[in-house]
Amino acid sequence: MTDKPGPSPKLSSLRDGDEFEGFYVVRESSFQTAVNGKNYIRMTIADASANFMANLWDANRELFQLCPAGCIVKLLGLLEIYKGKPQIRVIRFRPAHDSEVDLDSFLPRSARDADAMRDELLAIIGSIADPDYQALAKAFFHDAEIMREFARSPAARDLHHAFIGGLIEHTLNIARMAEAFAARAKIDRDLLLLGSLLHDIGKIEELEAKYAIDYTDAGKLLGHLFIGAQRVAEKAALIPGFPPEKTHLVQHLILSHHGRYEYGSPVLPKIPEAFALHHLDNLDAKVETANKLIAAIGDPEKNWTDFSRALETQLYRAGE
Amino acid sequence: MTDKPGPSPKLSSLRDGDEFEGFYVVRESSFQTAVNGKNYIRMTIADASANFMANLWDANRELFQLCPAGCIVKLLGLLEIYKGKPQIRVIRFRPAHDSEVDLDSFLPRSARDADAMRDELLAIIGSIADPDYQALAKAFFHDAEIMREFARSPAARDLHHAFIGGLIEHTLNIARMAEAFAARAKIDRDLLLLGSLLHDIGKIEELEAKYAIDYTDAGKLLGHLFIGAQRVAEKAALIPGFPPEKTHLVQHLILSHHGRYEYGSPVLPKIPEAFALHHLDNLDAKVETANKLIAAIGDPEKNWTDFSRALETQLYRAGE
Amino acid sequence: MTDKPGPSPKLSSLRDGDEFEGFYVVRESSFQTAVNGKNYIRMTIADASANFMANLWDANRELFQLCPAGCIVKLLGLLEIYKGKPQIRVIRFRPAHDSEVDLDSFLPRSARDADAMRDELLAIIGSIADPDYQALAKAFFHDAEIMREFARSPAARDLHHAFIGGLIEHTLNIARMAEAFAARAKIDRDLLLLGSLLHDIGKIEELEAKYAIDYTDAGKLLGHLFIGAQRVAEKAALIPGFPPEKTHLVQHLILSHHGRYEYGSPVLPKIPEAFALHHLDNLDAKVETANKLIAAIGDPEKNWTDFSRALETQLYRAGE
Amino acid sequence: MTDKPGPSPKLSSLRDGDEFEGFYVVRESSFQTAVNGKNYIRMTIADASANFMANLWDANRELFQLCPAGCIVKLLGLLEIYKGKPQIRVIRFRPAHDSEVDLDSFLPRSARDADAMRDELLAIIGSIADPDYQALAKAFFHDAEIMREFARSPAARDLHHAFIGGLIEHTLNIARMAEAFAARAKIDRDLLLLGSLLHDIGKIEELEAKYAIDYTDAGKLLGHLFIGAQRVAEKAALIPGFPPEKTHLVQHLILSHHGRYEYGSPVLPKIPEAFALHHLDNLDAKVETANKLIAAIGDPEKNWTDFSRALETQLYRAGE
Amino acid sequence: MTDKPGPSPKLSSLRDGDEFEGFYVVRESSFQTAVNGKNYIRMTIADASANFMANLWDANRELFQLCPAGCIVKLLGLLEIYKGKPQIRVIRFRPAHDSEVDLDSFLPRSARDADAMRDELLAIIGSIADPDYQALAKAFFHDAEIMREFARSPAARDLHHAFIGGLIEHTLNIARMAEAFAARAKIDRDLLLLGSLLHDIGKIEELEAKYAIDYTDAGKLLGHLFIGAQRVAEKAALIPGFPPEKTHLVQHLILSHHGRYEYGSPVLPKIPEAFALHHLDNLDAKVETANKLIAAIGDPEKNWTDFSRALETQLYRAGE
Amino acid sequence: MTDKPGPSPKLSSLRDGDEFEGFYVVRESSFQTAVNGKNYIRMTIADASANFMANLWDANRELFQLCPAGCIVKLLGLLEIYKGKPQIRVIRFRPAHDSEVDLDSFLPRSARDADAMRDELLAIIGSIADPDYQALAKAFFHDAEIMREFARSPAARDLHHAFIGGLIEHTLNIARMAEAFAARAKIDRDLLLLGSLLHDIGKIEELEAKYAIDYTDAGKLLGHLFIGAQRVAEKAALIPGFPPEKTHLVQHLILSHHGRYEYGSPVLPKIPEAFALHHLDNLDAKVETANKLIAAIGDPEKNWTDFSRALETQLYRAGE
Repeated sequence: MTDKPGPSPKLSSLRDGDEFEGFYVVRESSFQTAVNGKNYIRMTIADASANFMANLWDANRELFQLCPAGCIVKLLGLLEIYKGKPQIRVIRFRPAHDSEVDLDSFLPRSARDADAMRDELLAIIGSIADPDYQALAKAFFHDAEIMREFARSPAARDLHHAFIGGLIEHTLNIARMAEAFAARAKIDRDLLLLGSLLHDIGKIEELEAKYAIDYTDAGKLLGHLFIGAQRVAEKAALIPGFPPEKTHLVQHLILSHHGRYEYGSPVLPKIPEAFALHHLDNLDAKVETANKLIAAIGDPEKNWTDFSRALETQLYRAGE
Repeated sequence: MTDKPGPSPKLSSLRDGDEFEGFYVVRESSFQTAVNGKNYIRMTIADASANFMANLWDANRELFQLCPAGCIVKLLGLLEIYKGKPQIRVIRFRPAHDSEVDLDSFLPRSARDADAMRDELLAIIGSIADPDYQALAKAFFHDAEIMREFARSPAARDLHHAFIGGLIEHTLNIARMAEAFAARAKIDRDLLLLGSLLHDIGKIEELEAKYAIDYTDAGKLLGHLFIGAQRVAEKAALIPGFPPEKTHLVQHLILSHHGRYEYGSPVLPKIPEAFALHHLDNLDAKVETANKLIAAIGDPEKNWTDFSRALETQLYRAGE
Repeated sequence: MTDKPGPSPKLSSLRDGDEFEGFYVVRESSFQTAVNGKNYIRMTIADASANFMANLWDANRELFQLCPAGCIVKLLGLLEIYKGKPQIRVIRFRPAHDSEVDLDSFLPRSARDADAMRDELLAIIGSIADPDYQALAKAFFHDAEIMREFARSPAARDLHHAFIGGLIEHTLNIARMAEAFAARAKIDRDLLLLGSLLHDIGKIEELEAKYAIDYTDAGKLLGHLFIGAQRVAEKAALIPGFPPEKTHLVQHLILSHHGRYEYGSPVLPKIPEAFALHHLDNLDAKVETANKLIAAIGDPEKNWTDFSRALETQLYRAGE
Repeated sequence: MTDKPGPSPKLSSLRDGDEFEGFYVVRESSFQTAVNGKNYIRMTIADASANFMANLWDANRELFQLCPAGCIVKLLGLLEIYKGKPQIRVIRFRPAHDSEVDLDSFLPRSARDADAMRDELLAIIGSIADPDYQALAKAFFHDAEIMREFARSPAARDLHHAFIGGLIEHTLNIARMAEAFAARAKIDRDLLLLGSLLHDIGKIEELEAKYAIDYTDAGKLLGHLFIGAQRVAEKAALIPGFPPEKTHLVQHLILSHHGRYEYGSPVLPKIPEAFALHHLDNLDAKVETANKLIAAIGDPEKNWTDFSRALETQLYRAGE
Repeated sequence: MTDKPGPSPKLSSLRDGDEFEGFYVVRESSFQTAVNGKNYIRMTIADASANFMANLWDANRELFQLCPAGCIVKLLGLLEIYKGKPQIRVIRFRPAHDSEVDLDSFLPRSARDADAMRDELLAIIGSIADPDYQALAKAFFHDAEIMREFARSPAARDLHHAFIGGLIEHTLNIARMAEAFAARAKIDRDLLLLGSLLHDIGKIEELEAKYAIDYTDAGKLLGHLFIGAQRVAEKAALIPGFPPEKTHLVQHLILSHHGRYEYGSPVLPKIPEAFALHHLDNLDAKVETANKLIAAIGDPEKNWTDFSRALETQLYRAGE
Repeated sequence: MTDKPGPSPKLSSLRDGDEFEGFYVVRESSFQTAVNGKNYIRMTIADASANFMANLWDANRELFQLCPAGCIVKLLGLLEIYKGKPQIRVIRFRPAHDSEVDLDSFLPRSARDADAMRDELLAIIGSIADPDYQALAKAFFHDAEIMREFARSPAARDLHHAFIGGLIEHTLNIARMAEAFAARAKIDRDLLLLGSLLHDIGKIEELEAKYAIDYTDAGKLLGHLFIGAQRVAEKAALIPGFPPEKTHLVQHLILSHHGRYEYGSPVLPKIPEAFALHHLDNLDAKVETANKLIAAIGDPEKNWTDFSRALETQLYRAGE
C-alpha cells in the first residue's frame, strides 16, 4: 500500500468487482466470530458519497482496536454485490495520519458554491427595509463565528438537506420564496424575511457534523425551536432600543414554524407571517426529502420507493 | 320611498344612527312573536360588503310571506348598535323588481380586475411547454362555459377567498408561486403549473353562489377533489394520444392536494409536485384566512381575534 | 429429472424430509456469497398453497440469471425445517416451458366455485327492482371483459380475501347481508344492493395478480375508491335518462365506504345506505382477516397470533 | 277544564293554532321574569310523540311550585309556531292524579309489539345449540325481573333506539343479522348469537327511563360494558360446570363490542365473533340514528340535516 | 347612597331577595335595547367571591359610558334568581374613587396565608443541597421583584388555582410532593425540587391579574414554557461557573413538563425527574380543577357537574 | 460435570472469556442447520439477573428434545462477546432434577424485603379509618391466597416493576404518595388509599410468572381493569351492609385509573380521587421505567438510550 497522495475513489462510483484504495471514515465497527469459529471485523465504511458494509476476514483483535468507530483509515478493498447491495471485502487498512486527510471531505456537501450562498444571504439582509429587523439579522450573520457555523451546518440528520451547507441552502430557498410571496400577499415582508433567515438558526447548536451528522445533548433536551428563540432574545438585548414586541414576533415565528403541536411547536401560528413561514418551510423541506428518496431508488426497473415514515407513504418516480 | 335609481349605501359604511335606503338581499327571515305578544319579522339583510341582523316591529304575516329568504328588497332602515354589533331597525321594505337590480352586486367580489385575471391565467397556460399538459389546460379554460364559471366562482363558502372571483385569484397566486418555486427546485414545472390551475376546478360544481355562497348536493356528496379529478379524465379522453400516466399524475395532484387523510384527501402526496402543490395551496389559503380574520376585528382597542376553529387558535394583529 | 406430466405436490402438504418435484414460481431470487466464500442462490419459491425460502448451494451465476424473479421453474428439492420454519434445499431446477404450466395455478384461489359465484351475482342483479340501478349494474357485469376481471380479482394484496376470486366472494357476502338487512331496516334496498356490488369495483384496476398480487401504479396514485366512482360516471353516462342524483348516490356509496377520513374516504357517509355499506364491508373483511390470521398460527400449542398491525391486536384461537 | 277521561291529543299531531287539552309530562320548568317585569313559567312539555317549549304568562310562584319538573299535568294550551318551531301557549294546568295517568305513555315507544319481540327473543335462545351458552342466555332472560327491565329499556338516551322497547328491538335486529352472517361465514354461531343478546344487557342498569331517559350514577361511573360483563360472571357462576373459558369469551364480546379504545372498549376485539358483533352493532345503530335524524328534518324544502356530532357530518335525504 | 366605609357584602353570600350595597368590579358592560324599545345596561359584576349578571333597567347612555368594563363601582342592588341562576337587579351605581378601594380585593385569593407560603418556599430553597441549584433558585426568589410577582400571580386564567396566590400555592404543593417522592424513588432530589419551584415561573409574564386574570400578548405569542426556560438561561448566566449541562436540565424540566406535544411541550420528558414533574404537576392541577368544578355545582339536589371541556367528562360529587 | 450443590454464577456478573457452571432456565430453544450443513442448538438462557443467547455446536436432535423451552438445565458454558453483546458457547448441559432448584430463583426479584413489604401493606390497611373501606381492604389482603399471589406478582411483563414482588412494591409507593397528597389536598383519604391498594389487583390474574412473565388468556381477553373491578364487586357482596355507592366508587377508581380511553380505561376519571390515583400511578410507573431503561445503557460512553416505544422518546443519563 503506497501512501503517496492521490484522490480517493468515490464509494458511489464503484462497480461490482472493482478493487480500490483511498481514505475513508469508519462509522461503525465490531469484532465478531463467524459460524466457522474464525474472527472478522464488521464495519460501516463511508465517504461523502455513500456508506457501505465492509468485512475484514481472519482479523485479529489488535487491528480492530487500532481503528474504532470515528477513525479515518487508508483502506484497500474490493467491492462486491451481496443480497443486491454493495459491500466491501477489505483486503487491508491502517489508521490515517491527520496530515493526510480533510475531515469535511467525509460528509456529503451542498452542490451550491459556499461563497455564493453567503453572498446571497448578505444581499437578502441588505434588502430588509425595517432598521430593527435588519439590525437583528446583522447581529447574527455579521458575527463571523455564527456565519461560519451556519454556512457549514446541515439542516437535518437524516431527512432534508442532511449535508454540509444544507442549512444555508434551505434557508435561502425559503427566503427567496418569501420574497416572491410578499410581492403578492398582504404580509410584513421584512418580518417574514427575517423569520425565514432565523427559523432554523437553533440547528447550529442542535446538530453537530463531524464524521457523521448527529444531535447534541442540548439539541435533544431543548430542541432547535427553543434554542433559536432564546438566541433572538440575547441578540435583541444587545441592540439599543429594539422594541420588545418585535422580539416577541420574531421569537413567535421561530417557535411556531413547525405549525402543529405534534410537530413540536409549543405555540401555534398566530400571525399571517407565521402561517407563511410554516408552509414555505414545509414546501422546501418536503420536496427536497421526496426528491432525495426518489433519487435513492437503486433498481432502474422500479419506480416506487419503500415506505417512508417521514412522509407516511411510498413515493413514485414518474416515467421519463 | 321613491324608487328612482341611485346607488344603494354599502352596509359596511353605515354608522350608528344612520338612516338609509337601497336594495339588499334577504338571507334569512322568520316571523316571530315578542314577549309582549306582538309579531315582528327577524331577518338577515346583506349586500356585498356585510350582513346584519334586522327587525321589522309590528309586522304582519302577509308582508313576511311576500319576501322570503333569497329575495331582493328595497328597504328603508336605521342602523343601531346592539350588544356591540350593528343591527338594522327596518322602517319599511318591498320586494324589488328584476329590472331594478344586478344579482352579483349582493355578493362580495375580488378586488382584482376580472379581465386582468383571465388574461393572466391564459398567459400562464401559454407558458406550459409540455404539449399534453398545455392541451389539457386549454381543454378546460378555452371552454367558454368553464372559464365563465371559473372566473366567477368563490374559493370557499366561509373561509379563504369566499367571494366572487375568489377561485381564480387564489389559483393565480398558487400558479405564480409555483413558477417561482420551479425556478429553484427540482420539479416538473409544467406538471406543477397545471396542477395549480386545476387543483380546485371541482369547486365550480361543489359551490354555488347566487345570493349566498353554499354547497351543492353533489358537492357535499362527492367533494371537489373527486369532481375535479373526474373532470380531468373526461377532458383527457377527448385529447388524442394523451398518455394515461399523465392523466393519473394530474388526477393524483388534485386528489392529494389536501395533504392528509383527515383533510379529505383519499391518497397522500406521492410525487414531489404533489407536496409542492399541497403547501403552496395552504400557504395562500391560510394567510388569506388569517388576514381576513384579523381585518374583521371590530374593536380598534383589541389586537386579538376570537378563537378560530379553522386555524385552531386566536390571531394577533401586530402593532402598527 | 424427467419431464413427463403429473401434478406438482402442494408445498403446504410437504413434511420435514420430503423430496419432491414439480412446477413452482420464483417470487424472489438473489445471488449470494456464504461466509465460507462459496456462492449460492437464495429464492422464495411458491405455489397457490404456500411460499417458502429456498437455497441452492454451490450455484453459478449463469443458472441464477436463467431464472429471475417471476419465472416458473421445474424444481427437484428437499423440505427441511430451519428455525422452526419449512425451507427448501434445492437439488436442481430449470425454467419451465409455457406449454407445461397454467399461470393461475400459482396463486391461491377461492374455495367457492367460480361459475356458481358468477351466477349468484347475476341473480342478485336480476333482483334489483329499480330499473336505473339494475341498468347500471348490468352496464358493469354484463360487460364480459369487466366480469372476467371481476371474477378473477383478489380483494386485497395482503389482508382479507387476498386470492383469485376473492373480490367476487367478498362482494357476494356483502350483498347477501345487505339483502338480509334491507328486510329489517328502513333502507333503499336497491341502492344498497347496487352499492354492495360496486363498492370495490375499482380494485380490478388497483390490483394486479400475475405471479403475485400487487398494486398497479394507478392504484397507488388514485386508489380504488376514486377509480370505482369514476367508472360509475362513465357507465351511467351511457344509460339514456339516468338521473344525475342516482349517479351521485352510487358514487357517494363508493367514496364513503371506508367510513372515516383516516381510512381513505374523502367524504363521510351521509345517507343511511352508506353507513350500512361501510359496516357490512367491515363485517365481512375483518372477520375474514381474523380467521385467516388465526388459521396461520403454526404451532398447535399456541392459541394467540402475533400482533397484527391491520387489526391492532393479537387474535385468540378459542379452544375446541 | 272538565276532567272526564279521554285520549290526550298527541303533541306531534298538533298544527299551528290548535287548542288542545290532555295529560302531559313536565320535563323542565323555571320561574322567570320578563323584560316588562311580569313573571311567567317556562316549561318543556312532552308526551311520547314530541317535546315542546311552553310558556304560561302572568304566572305566580305558587303554581310553579305545584308542578316541578317530572310532574304530570292536565293542561289546556294553544300551539303556536315561534321561530319556525312549535311552541305551546299554556292557558291553564293542574297536577294530575296518579289514577288518571299511565306513566309509560309519556315516553316514546317501539313501533313493534312488545309480546312479539319477547317471543322472538325466546325463540332465538331456543335455537342456541351449545348447552352452556343456552343456559347462560336463559339465566338472564328466563329471569322475569330481568326480562321485564330488558323489554322496557331504551337502547340510548339520545341517539339510536332512544325509546321504550328500543333495547330489545335493537338486540333482535343484531341477533337476526348474526344468524344470517353465521350462515355464510366461519364463525361460532352460538357464541355470536349469545353475544348479540347480551352485548347491551348492562344498559338496563346504565339507563333509567321514568319521565325521561337518563343515565344512572352507576351507569356514568362504570359504563354498561363493565356492568354487563360483571353480570355475566355472576350468572355463569350459578350454572354448574360452566367452563371458565366460555365466561371469558362472552365477557370479551361485551367488553370489546365498541371496537376501539376511544369508544370506551377497554379491550379490542380478539376473536372473529367480536369483530362481527362490533360491526353488526354499528350497522344497526348507525343506520337507525341516520334515519331518525333525517326524519326530523322539519322543513320539507330542505334535504340536509344540521351537522350531527354523533355521526360527524350532515345527513342527506335522497329525493323521492 | 351613603359613602361611609363598611365591608362590601360578598356576592357569594347573597340570597334570593337580598338588597345590598358595596364596591364591585364591572367585568363586562353593554348598552342594550329591550324588545319594548327601552334601553338598559347589561353588566357582569364581580368581587373576589363570585361574578353575576346584572341589569340596570331604564338606563341612559351617559351612565353607561361613565363605568366601562374594568371600572370599580359603588352599587346598590337586589339579588334575584333567574333561570335558576343568581342575577342582580341594579338600583343605582356610581364609579368608585381610588381612595375607596383596594384593587386586589376584587379577585379571588388563596385561602393560605401569603407570608407563610413565602416562608415555606424559602425554606424549601434552603433544603436544596446542590450549591448550583440552590444558587439558581435564589437568583429567582431572592429577587424581591420576582418574589412579589410570583407570590401574587394566579396559576391559570380559568382552570386550577385561578386566584391571587394560586401560583405559589400550586408550586408549594408540587414541591412538597416532590420531597415525598424523592424519599422513595431513585431521583435527583435537588433537580426535581428546583424544577418544581421553577416549572411555572413563566406564568408571571404570561398572565396578568388586574381586575380579571388574562393572558398577556407575550404570553399568547410565546407561552410560559418558553418564557420560563429563557429566564433560566438569563439567571444562570449571572452565576459564575454554573455548569451548562445543569442549565439544560432545568430548562428541559420546564419545557417538557406538559408531558405531551399536544399539550404544548416542544420536547418530551427525557429524564426521570421530567416524568416526575409532569405527573406531580398534573396531580395537583387536575385534582384542584375537579374540586373547584364540584364545589360549583349550584343545585344541592344534583351530584354531577356539566360536561367539562378541560377534563373531558362530567364530575361526580360523592354522597356525604 | 459434578452435581454437588453450590451457588450458580449470576449471568450478569460474567465477563468475556469466563467459563462457568450452574443452573439456568431455557427460555427459547430451536434446532438449526448451519451454512456448513452441521446442526446446532440455539437457545436463550436466563437467570434472575439477565438472559443471553447461547449456542451448542455439533448438537444432535435427541439432546435438543430433552430440554425444551421452559426447562431448567445444569449447564457448563463459556461467555463470549459477539457483535458487542454477551453470548454463551455451551460446552454441555443436562436437564436439572426438581430437587436441585428453586423455581423463583430464575426470575428477577424486588430489592425490598418481602416480609417488610407485607407488613407495610397491612399497616396501611390499619390506617384506613372508614370501616367499610377497611373491611374491603381486609377482604382482599387478609385472604392468605390473595396475599401470597399479590406479594409475588410482577407489575408488568416488560415495563415498570417487571419482577417478582414488583406489584406490591409499586402499590406501596403509590399508597405512600397518596398519604402524602391526602395531607395537603381536599380528598377522601380512605377512598384514595383503598384505590391505591386495589388499582392493579387484577394483575394477579392478568399476569403469570413462572419461568418468564407473560399474560394469561383471561388477562388478554379481559384486562386487569375489568378483572379487578369485578373482584371488588364479589368481595363487597360478602361484607354485610356494604353501601352500593362505595362499591361503585372503588370500581370507578380501578376502571378509570389509566386516565384515557386510548390507554384502556373504559370510563374517564370523574371524582378527584380518580384523577389523583391516575397521576400517582403514572408518577411511579413512568419514573421506574425511565430509570430501568437508563440503567440498561450498556456502553459507559453513551448517555442516551435507544428510542423507547413505551415512553415515545429516548432517555438521557445526566452526567455524574
